[in-house]
Amino acid sequence: MGVTQLNPTCSKPRLHSSQLSFLSRTLPRHRHCTFAPLHRTQQARISCSVAPNEVQVPTVKTQDPKSKPECYGVFCLTYDLRAEEETRSWKKLINIAVSGAAGMIANHLLFKLASGEVFGPDQPIALKLLGSERSIQALEGVAMELEDSLFPLLREVSIGIDPYEVFQDAEWALLIDLLDINGQIYAAQGRALNAVASRNVKVIVVGNPCNTNALICLKNAPNIPAKNFHALTRLDENRAKCQLALKAGVFYDKVSNVTIWGNHSTTQVPDFLNARIDGLPVKEVVKDHKWLEEEFTEKVQKRGGALIQKWGRSSAASTSVSIVDAIRSLVTPTPEGDWFSSGVYSNGNPYGIAEGIVFSMPCRSKGDGDYELVKDVIFDDYLRQRIAKTEAELLAEKRCVAHLTGEGIAVCDLPGDTMLPGEM
Amino acid sequence: MGVTQLNPTCSKPRLHSSQLSFLSRTLPRHRHCTFAPLHRTQQARISCSVAPNEVQVPTVKTQDPKSKPECYGVFCLTYDLRAEEETRSWKKLINIAVSGAAGMIANHLLFKLASGEVFGPDQPIALKLLGSERSIQALEGVAMELEDSLFPLLREVSIGIDPYEVFQDAEWALLIDLLDINGQIYAAQGRALNAVASRNVKVIVVGNPCNTNALICLKNAPNIPAKNFHALTRLDENRAKCQLALKAGVFYDKVSNVTIWGNHSTTQVPDFLNARIDGLPVKEVVKDHKWLEEEFTEKVQKRGGALIQKWGRSSAASTSVSIVDAIRSLVTPTPEGDWFSSGVYSNGNPYGIAEGIVFSMPCRSKGDGDYELVKDVIFDDYLRQRIAKTEAELLAEKRCVAHLTGEGIAVCDLPGDTMLPGEM
Repeated sequence: MGVTQLNPTCSKPRLHSSQLSFLSRTLPRHRHCTFAPLHRTQQARISCSVAPNEVQVPTVKTQDPKSKPECYGVFCLTYDLRAEEETRSWKKLINIAVSGAAGMIANHLLFKLASGEVFGPDQPIALKLLGSERSIQALEGVAMELEDSLFPLLREVSIGIDPYEVFQDAEWALLIDLLDINGQIYAAQGRALNAVASRNVKVIVVGNPCNTNALICLKNAPNIPAKNFHALTRLDENRAKCQLALKAGVFYDKVSNVTIWGNHSTTQVPDFLNARIDGLPVKEVVKDHKWLEEEFTEKVQKRGGALIQKWGRSSAASTSVSIVDAIRSLVTPTPEGDWFSSGVYSNGNPYGIAEGIVFSMPCRSKGDGDYELVKDVIFDDYLRQRIAKTEAELLAEKRCVAHLTGEGIAVCDLPGDTMLPGEM
Repeated sequence: MGVTQLNPTCSKPRLHSSQLSFLSRTLPRHRHCTFAPLHRTQQARISCSVAPNEVQVPTVKTQDPKSKPECYGVFCLTYDLRAEEETRSWKKLINIAVSGAAGMIANHLLFKLASGEVFGPDQPIALKLLGSERSIQALEGVAMELEDSLFPLLREVSIGIDPYEVFQDAEWALLIDLLDINGQIYAAQGRALNAVASRNVKVIVVGNPCNTNALICLKNAPNIPAKNFHALTRLDENRAKCQLALKAGVFYDKVSNVTIWGNHSTTQVPDFLNARIDGLPVKEVVKDHKWLEEEFTEKVQKRGGALIQKWGRSSAASTSVSIVDAIRSLVTPTPEGDWFSSGVYSNGNPYGIAEGIVFSMPCRSKGDGDYELVKDVIFDDYLRQRIAKTEAELLAEKRCVAHLTGEGIAVCDLPGDTMLPGEM
């Protein structure tokens, strides 16, 4: 199921007219069934704001500052964290790769990662920013702003356009490519992760359609555990919690055990059957069950669209907060009795959901970067029916990208566009 | 020097041709010498995403959720923090007002304030967002994203267009209006702060020309200590530290005691005479004194322009980081032997700088929100000459806005445009 099994020149998929809206966001017509060989000759563009002859070896340091090939500015120096009293007790530097790094979501996220609020005050950070030829200048701008922010924990910033260089030894890969909405780049990035990333890299896919992009990515990275790939449904979970809190007249910190089931699309299922408010089942607290069944889900789904209408741009700030939440949920133990939602590989799930897709489900973590699926959830007919619908959609999306997952010829029979309003 | 002494219909100021570039950014010609009376009839627009009949009183709470007039969404409820075990030990809620709240700097800053990284994990926050008729919809979008972020410490969000309502009981006022670059709004906001804010409100002016806007603001708020007003020069300080680190080949955390003297403009003086690297005077570490005297200052000043060129937009992320730094410097004790820069009222300064202007100088704080000026700094002829130049500029800017500070008729004799490249 790895790189070698991919179908390099697959035939044109059979198309129904109803599929065009999906294809328009996943497989642009001019290259919807080619499988571009990877350009290994393409090199990461290097930038460093200190010319070698401008750097003066400081008289106060015993260690020579050593230039590294892909670095940026003040991050071009090598720091010996063991040699300094303040940093001696710090953890080992972690490599965090971010694609779509010149975009608005990344512009929020990178500063959060660098500030220490995600991985803690003793975790030094290396940021590896992946852009495109077109965005490389903007990436330099981002790196300059990171320099000017003087984050003590941020010890390396490098920028590039070749995923094989940028993903080298990555321990986290946050894939936020939104502009090139096409499974191809997620196939290419999966192969690059497979080749060069840490064998235990954790991958969070944000670019839409994120569940199926995560599937493409993991299928192209057979040497990395499929369990390590996530599709971001945390913003949906956060929005669901907020809407339940509003309805119940409580603060959102009282809402727990909210699952988003399935696809990050309009078929998603925000689960009010298992959710709790102040420890009680939501249906005992919110007596208006008609609202729960008929309005709640729509309110969650339409949030992004409503926001675009108000705000004139998409929800970059709250999306980046939800990415932080998703990472934190994997690196800190889940509170007793609670869980979080993430789009994860469905193999071996205890809910009877089809295998071989990336499906959002309730997870718990010991804080070691890994997770387990929650077993004690209940289902009723309403919930089962909704889950079946989003499951069918993900299976159809999977058939539609079969040429990218090494599973033969793509066949698209998607019922229609189910992209969430306000998302690209 | 308060509201009553303002000159409501001042005569046209005498203009030199050299002043036009300054005037074009401070006093738009069509209203450069009118003094608009305050429209107290203008009411804040209220928005709440829960209609009263949609809110269900929860069965699990003993206290009725009470609607407040200016609130937004889930923040419309009243929370009794003393009643809950997790929040009982928290500090009293603080009111933070932010103007220009729909802009890009605020879009970064508000999420930092709400996350707890500025005021700490036991400090609940109320955000009061000031916008304009034009931006009120965008403010609702910001409030929606704040809701969806589920920040536990964020307990109130209100939005409005009347500073007399938004600044009510404000303990911090972060004035980031960038679009209406004209001293008038800072006069109006000063009067509003004077009337309704906490008597010990701390004000940080970011909108340019920020020193003189801070002066206008404080002169219109005679009942608030002038010492409580700051003009943001922290981004300049951060950039100066980064450039010194780059030159010396050290990490930026080794650079201390950097002062930005004077105006946040191209006449600003980044002080390398008193600055230290690894505890040693910069001039002992960086032997290239020609670079220090001729290139360093320009590198700091031109950073914003270089960034715009790369990045295509201004440095919102690093500006918001520097605002956070500025606040933190006032609410946490300054490290032993170090200091920070802030544009503060010059009365009583020990450096011989003219009184009655807002001048960036080295400050230390005990962490109580207040500061004292640092006495043990040295001067040489080079530094004195540079300081005299930025002092002359600020005195000229002051004469140019005399009609807004209650000091008579404006006379503009500014030598030319000294706005920093890349800033509005």
